[in-house]
Amino acid sequence: MKVKPERFLADLHALRRFGARGGGVVRPAFSDADIAARDWLAERFAEAGLTPRFDAVGNLFGVAPEAGGILLGSHSDSQPEGGWLDGAFGVIAGLEVARAAREAGLGGVSVVSFSDEEGRFGGLTGSSVWSGAMTLAEADRLTDAAGVTLAEARAALGQRPGEAPPPERFSAFIEPHIEQGPWLEKEGKVVGVVTDIVGIRDLPIRLTGQQNHAGTTPMAFRRDAVQGFVAAVTRINAALEALAGPVTVWTVGRVEVTPNASSIVPGMVRFWVQWRDPDAERLRAMEEAIRRAVEAAARERGLGLEFGRLFAIDPQPMDARLVETLARAAEEELPGRWRRMPSGALHDASNVARRMPAAMLFVPSKGGISHDFAEDTDEADLVAGLAVLARAVAEVAAKAA
Amino acid sequence: MKVKPERFLADLHALRRFGARGGGVVRPAFSDADIAARDWLAERFAEAGLTPRFDAVGNLFGVAPEAGGILLGSHSDSQPEGGWLDGAFGVIAGLEVARAAREAGLGGVSVVSFSDEEGRFGGLTGSSVWSGAMTLAEADRLTDAAGVTLAEARAALGQRPGEAPPPERFSAFIEPHIEQGPWLEKEGKVVGVVTDIVGIRDLPIRLTGQQNHAGTTPMAFRRDAVQGFVAAVTRINAALEALAGPVTVWTVGRVEVTPNASSIVPGMVRFWVQWRDPDAERLRAMEEAIRRAVEAAARERGLGLEFGRLFAIDPQPMDARLVETLARAAEEELPGRWRRMPSGALHDASNVARRMPAAMLFVPSKGGISHDFAEDTDEADLVAGLAVLARAVAEVAAKAA
Repeated sequence: MKVKPERFLADLHALRRFGARGGGVVRPAFSDADIAARDWLAERFAEAGLTPRFDAVGNLFGVAPEAGGILLGSHSDSQPEGGWLDGAFGVIAGLEVARAAREAGLGGVSVVSFSDEEGRFGGLTGSSVWSGAMTLAEADRLTDAAGVTLAEARAALGQRPGEAPPPERFSAFIEPHIEQGPWLEKEGKVVGVVTDIVGIRDLPIRLTGQQNHAGTTPMAFRRDAVQGFVAAVTRINAALEALAGPVTVWTVGRVEVTPNASSIVPGMVRFWVQWRDPDAERLRAMEEAIRRAVEAAARERGLGLEFGRLFAIDPQPMDARLVETLARAAEEELPGRWRRMPSGALHDASNVARRMPAAMLFVPSKGGISHDFAEDTDEADLVAGLAVLARAVAEVAAKAA
Repeated sequence: MKVKPERFLADLHALRRFGARGGGVVRPAFSDADIAARDWLAERFAEAGLTPRFDAVGNLFGVAPEAGGILLGSHSDSQPEGGWLDGAFGVIAGLEVARAAREAGLGGVSVVSFSDEEGRFGGLTGSSVWSGAMTLAEADRLTDAAGVTLAEARAALGQRPGEAPPPERFSAFIEPHIEQGPWLEKEGKVVGVVTDIVGIRDLPIRLTGQQNHAGTTPMAFRRDAVQGFVAAVTRINAALEALAGPVTVWTVGRVEVTPNASSIVPGMVRFWVQWRDPDAERLRAMEEAIRRAVEAAARERGLGLEFGRLFAIDPQPMDARLVETLARAAEEELPGRWRRMPSGALHDASNVARRMPAAMLFVPSKGGISHDFAEDTDEADLVAGLAVLARAVAEVAAKAA
């Protein structure tokens, strides 16, 4: 098969016009721009000989006539202030490969743009419903930041939705995506073959001290929740540095102080510790270390301690045979200029992997920047990623034939 | 002169009924309960032979016919959820001593309840205006948390206000008050003679890092503002522990994280460091140490740093002769059961001290609790404080005679 880089780049720029702002896009799920972009995609799918099919939650499939083939794609919704390639690259690369496959007489390549990957209603919503991780009724009760339910928002799809093609119709899934991190660029690589999507743990923690007057309460008698927080994070850092693997990350991104006034010894701090790693055993050991670190800090300072409910997404290894196929294609297209790597971000492939062999392909993000209007990738790298994808799909198709 | 403890306690409990809730009081400045309490106080002043005089900002004076005498008192407004003794003890103790002085043929003792000590419009508002630290026009522009201006709120005083007696009419000021801290109770003392009202410094600080994806941004490439905050507070603690005197306190009571989301490496933290001490030189050295500590933490982590405008209230020593008078009276009434101490909280006496010799007398706070419905003091301690005040006032009056 022979992909056409100019056609691919032209479609990518055409998609960029929907919700365009400041070099990026504003295309949250079910917005006018998101639905208009999907209507435009549906036309491209039809032109490519694929049957456009919306499902109830807004996923848009371009279904090849031949059952049992491969599914390619990602998502075309965006963050509230998103980049132009996040999701879009994977959908348009999939479209171009499906088109080239059909032109080469191969057929059997379908394409998808999942709905609400970026989380207006929580994240990965469309692929969660399609893969069966969540029912449509459950999804319908999700609300966005303004209190709108998904049920209300998806009414904007009007008469578009029908039956989704069942996951059983497809034999495998490959999601091309931008890296959204700095590694490929820093190492001068052009393509990343994803080995695992990391697991995530997020633990809410509450430290309770004694709210008091900041002038009349001597230091020795204080039970200060902010000081407890500082001690807890210091201990967490020390414990996790000892456990960390090469791609382990942890973040304290959310902190809420009560009553949060300069003249009052703070009585309560709620904070969230999030950590990610591809190794489930390391994730478990980190949880244990975090709990012990916070317990020690609370004990030392006479603070009450309550752990909230742990949020957990397990690591998702990519399908070993698909990974090898992508690795061979990358080495043939770009000898020495690719690497295997985990994905630190979640992707629709995490959900789809529950139903069929799944894998992912990364291209570099300039400066590691994503979820920002400044997000970008060199056109040469986008085209190189497309070429690796096409070569891998051709190999899968040849084996299936 | 002979004070009457039963009459004093009866009046204290009578005042407690205005805005009574849950054992405490809800009597913020210019509320119906606050004004009703002042009307009741004005009647008590008149009964005691004092002329009740409201001024424009709501201060209520009970003015003795004889000019040149001593002024006693505090405030009768409360926190949004306040205790029954904060301010009230000083006003009713002053009333009882003025009454007893008149009964003893001494005269010349006046009483005041200052307006908005508790800060619906910023704190110490009434005594700021009366002492000349702030003009009435400036006070009128202050707003409460709901956006109401003081000018609008004080309209509720109706026809009550007239001319305030000028500060020059009085020769000295003594403010009896509950301690609002734990020291007297912990040391088994009944009265505290205040030597200084501590100075306050409050420094707003902003640390700026790089907001980023909490999954795809490796630890080594992060510029995490919350981690910078933790490092800064750790360094501040170490530096201030080395500088602290016996009553030094510092507090990080307000912290604001941006964007404050679990999955985002935090890009900005604003926080406020407040410190208090009676020694102006130590306050200055602490400021220097805090700035250096935060600069080191920011440099170490590659964070941007901006210091906001320092808020400063200088330490206010109490008048040495009045302090000695109170100390003698305390030793005669309660040998060995009193102490000299600084006040960690601000009081109206800080303002009045700019216009005349001023001093303060503390009685214990059970459990060190104040600004809370649970605030309380043993009746025996309230009466002991009253007795010390009466003895000191008698000595001042005798000297003036």
